[in-house]
Amino acid sequence: MTKKIKLGIVGYGNLGKGAVEAINQTDDMELVAIFTRRDPKDLHVSSDNVKAIHISDAEKYKDEIDVMLLCGGSATDLPEQTPELARMFNTVDSYDTHAKIPEFYASVHQAATKGNTTAIISVGWDPGLFSINRVMADAILPNGSTYTFWGKGLSQGHSDAIRRVNGVKYGVQYTIPTEAAIQRVRNGENPELSNADKHKRVCYVVAENDANKEEIVETITTMPNYFADYTTEVHFITEEELQRDHSKAPHGGFVIHSGNTGDNHNQIYEFSLKLDSNPEFTASVLVAYARAAYRLNKENQYGAKTVYDIAPSYISQRSNEELRRDFL
Amino acid sequence: MTKKIKLGIVGYGNLGKGAVEAINQTDDMELVAIFTRRDPKDLHVSSDNVKAIHISDAEKYKDEIDVMLLCGGSATDLPEQTPELARMFNTVDSYDTHAKIPEFYASVHQAATKGNTTAIISVGWDPGLFSINRVMADAILPNGSTYTFWGKGLSQGHSDAIRRVNGVKYGVQYTIPTEAAIQRVRNGENPELSNADKHKRVCYVVAENDANKEEIVETITTMPNYFADYTTEVHFITEEELQRDHSKAPHGGFVIHSGNTGDNHNQIYEFSLKLDSNPEFTASVLVAYARAAYRLNKENQYGAKTVYDIAPSYISQRSNEELRRDFL
Repeated sequence: MTKKIKLGIVGYGNLGKGAVEAINQTDDMELVAIFTRRDPKDLHVSSDNVKAIHISDAEKYKDEIDVMLLCGGSATDLPEQTPELARMFNTVDSYDTHAKIPEFYASVHQAATKGNTTAIISVGWDPGLFSINRVMADAILPNGSTYTFWGKGLSQGHSDAIRRVNGVKYGVQYTIPTEAAIQRVRNGENPELSNADKHKRVCYVVAENDANKEEIVETITTMPNYFADYTTEVHFITEEELQRDHSKAPHGGFVIHSGNTGDNHNQIYEFSLKLDSNPEFTASVLVAYARAAYRLNKENQYGAKTVYDIAPSYISQRSNEELRRDFL
Repeated sequence: MTKKIKLGIVGYGNLGKGAVEAINQTDDMELVAIFTRRDPKDLHVSSDNVKAIHISDAEKYKDEIDVMLLCGGSATDLPEQTPELARMFNTVDSYDTHAKIPEFYASVHQAATKGNTTAIISVGWDPGLFSINRVMADAILPNGSTYTFWGKGLSQGHSDAIRRVNGVKYGVQYTIPTEAAIQRVRNGENPELSNADKHKRVCYVVAENDANKEEIVETITTMPNYFADYTTEVHFITEEELQRDHSKAPHGGFVIHSGNTGDNHNQIYEFSLKLDSNPEFTASVLVAYARAAYRLNKENQYGAKTVYDIAPSYISQRSNEELRRDFL
């Protein structure tokens, strides 16, 4: 039996918990330790044989861990943690602040090149699988347009915005792609579409007992940046309904590329995800790319990489012979 | 301005013609010559500056062509042509006899290794883009099942079978995925589905004047291997309707992977194509992968490759910086 790839997880929120589940579904990887900024004693890890370690002791595990899955947030955790840890470990992260990716890449690349490690950044589904499809569709059908739709999905930022409104006790917001816009793209019309044309926003709100519901609706639907430009629905529900119907974190979306070839032949290329659990799926992508980080590092391919630099076979557990025989 | 990648095309059928169109849509590649087994004088190539050359003279173009696009058929052309030409040229082909891929790979790999060339085999959409998605979905969601649906698409083999029936003047057959089966997969039911469960066959027939239509229907719908196991519809149309409505070669299909993570959360991963012109799209994929063959060869990565060995950035015309900044 071949040696398993040894993984560490940094950060034990929803994404870190999803990573534990995803590793359990593989045959070729094992989880060694979870690293946390909290007191490790407070971490309740369901798997046996998995240590909870304070992040300040990570360096001691340099020889015991092949790849670190960085499961912190993009706002403040990853800009610090990825370059810091990539000096010592192969890493995979889900950095998703699109505007700052070039800068993030540069700082991680420097660290990983210095440390002879392989650091795959911005892994997940967007950035990640959606990015791959945007690039491949554009490469294959250069005379065309690419559209990204998000949802149906729970948006954390917009849910937070609702909860700050006066009289709102709890609230969740779903981003929902507009069916009519999707149809226009699938029909090859190549329409000009803003994000507001492509999506509507549906809010479920539990109001305080004495709240003025009309005022809540008014405040939400006119909120600049978040809702004002969008078709926004506000539904009032009870606390029980919120618990029962809105406790999951579904998400998904579509990348649709509509291109033309030859004598005006329309060609529609589409990739989509419909996810019951966004963090568990994202974690599953991270875990698959941990294989790639491990293998690339064995080939001395050091530095920061993105999903664009990774051939499909590197994320698969199967041999190249099996892939050619059974999957091609 | 950077030097353009110089391409040759071998075989000037529908796929070869699609390749000419696809090359015209790129900025970084140019077509040098089309190679044929026919008399080159009989080839009417619409582009200027493109030579028509007899295939027996290919070797003379060794230094003028960076990548050869092999646009012949899988039954007899490619098993001979790919190994023969891969000794001298970087190649891309669309070999699609699934059962014989390992054997084909071995013979091409030997030739390309010997010739220090890079030969990407079995490129297109199935095998090709569909294969990539089957592998990536399986790698990311190992606890799941993958379903491939084909269509709506014109099937050449089944159309030929109809035309051999007594009393049939012309005929075309479309393979159409069963909507109910797609829905069951998208719902995460993980059903067991045969090809006959997943597809129906719809035939459009122009009958001879004196033909017995009932007999035609009976003969088609009971034809073993081709139709007997499937839900088959036969529609009689006029020759004018055939010309007007059935002269294109549309195709497409779906790869749907339904997987579970964590506490039974269903995750649906889907890739689909809806193509007005199957040969033009397939040719567009070949042309994009010609970039990869050229670049891999520059990196001394010799031998036979499949789409599994190619990172997405290798097929894109854009720089890695641009991809990270604008597409990730």
